Amino acid sequence: MATSVLYMSMSLDGFIAGPADTPANPGGDGFMRLHDWFIGPDGEFGNVSGPAREVVDEMSDFSAIVAGRNTVEQVDHWGGERNGVQIIVPSHRPPAPSVAKYPKVTYVTDGIVNAMALAKEAAGDGRVLVHGAYTAQTALEAGVLDELQIHQIPVLFGSGRRLFDVLPKRIELEVVKVVDTPEATHLRYRVLR
Amino acid sequence: MATSVLYMSMSLDGFIAGPADTPANPGGDGFMRLHDWFIGPDGEFGNVSGPAREVVDEMSDFSAIVAGRNTVEQVDHWGGERNGVQIIVPSHRPPAPSVAKYPKVTYVTDGIVNAMALAKEAAGDGRVLVHGAYTAQTALEAGVLDELQIHQIPVLFGSGRRLFDVLPKRIELEVVKVVDTPEATHLRYRVLR
Repeated sequence: MATSVLYMSMSLDGFIAGPADTPANPGGDGFMRLHDWFIGPDGEFGNVSGPAREVVDEMSDFSAIVAGRNTVEQVDHWGGERNGVQIIVPSHRPPAPSVAKYPKVTYVTDGIVNAMALAKEAAGDGRVLVHGAYTAQTALEAGVLDELQIHQIPVLFGSGRRLFDVLPKRIELEVVKVVDTPEATHLRYRVLR
Repeated sequence: MATSVLYMSMSLDGFIAGPADTPANPGGDGFMRLHDWFIGPDGEFGNVSGPAREVVDEMSDFSAIVAGRNTVEQVDHWGGERNGVQIIVPSHRPPAPSVAKYPKVTYVTDGIVNAMALAKEAAGDGRVLVHGAYTAQTALEAGVLDELQIHQIPVLFGSGRRLFDVLPKRIELEVVKVVDTPEATHLRYRVLR
């Protein structure tokens, strides 16, 4: 059975995007501050060493993706291709016509539970990479998110968009692993049910 | 010079109190979930062993207190006495008349900067223990909070009162120490200016 894991960089005060998050300003003002940790000394994304290396390697090991519409539209569905895996987009609205050219991208319009089921089937025994604040929230509420990998950044963002909005219930977590680096505290949790 | 340190237990989604936080229900619904880590196997507050012991010992080593009015009124100013140190309460309103019987409790009505200056003077080279979400927020905004010790609890509270409200500016932090336990991730940050 596949495991669904949310990966998000979040400020200590809970923000995953800055203010003025628009298509012309993806992630909002100062967004990249939350992703500094992921940039190597050569400026290459993901080219990090030390304890964060293990976190990046885990993040790169996925067999399907569930990502929110905002996320995928901002990057044009990664050109239809990311590690050769199925990309599942839960959305109430059907995709833009241009998405038809991407055979690996599937929009699921009947809810996060079905979207996650499709992704887990595609992932086999692997990981489903989950991305996006709204998607995470709905997956948590529906009980279909298995793990959270939070890259907690030592900054108070002050304003922007929060990862965790108000939830209708309390959800217990289990600390799986903590990786302590100066750039980020990488916190891995299992969602308990 | 004294160091001011905020100590707060916070859920992963940023709450330090549950919903329905009223004088009759201090801390709101489910508040104690955030403080389980602090309770020993004998039910005694602070009687914890293992890596959290060091955190508790640090918390107990303070030479003055700055605490919000809500906090101190809920515990009747700790009966006027806590470790024999000065207790400074920043508040726009003067204290209730009954507070006059507590010589170690001082209300400062002209702002957090003056309240903190008084506390730091009283603390000498020691620590000023800072407590309360609103007090923390105003101290951060005014640039008079030196460190944050967050006990981050593996739970999504879903609703209640957040520690970090919207701030008028971004504030950079430095990770000083991370203590990883199953009950809480103890995160210590220095506030950079």
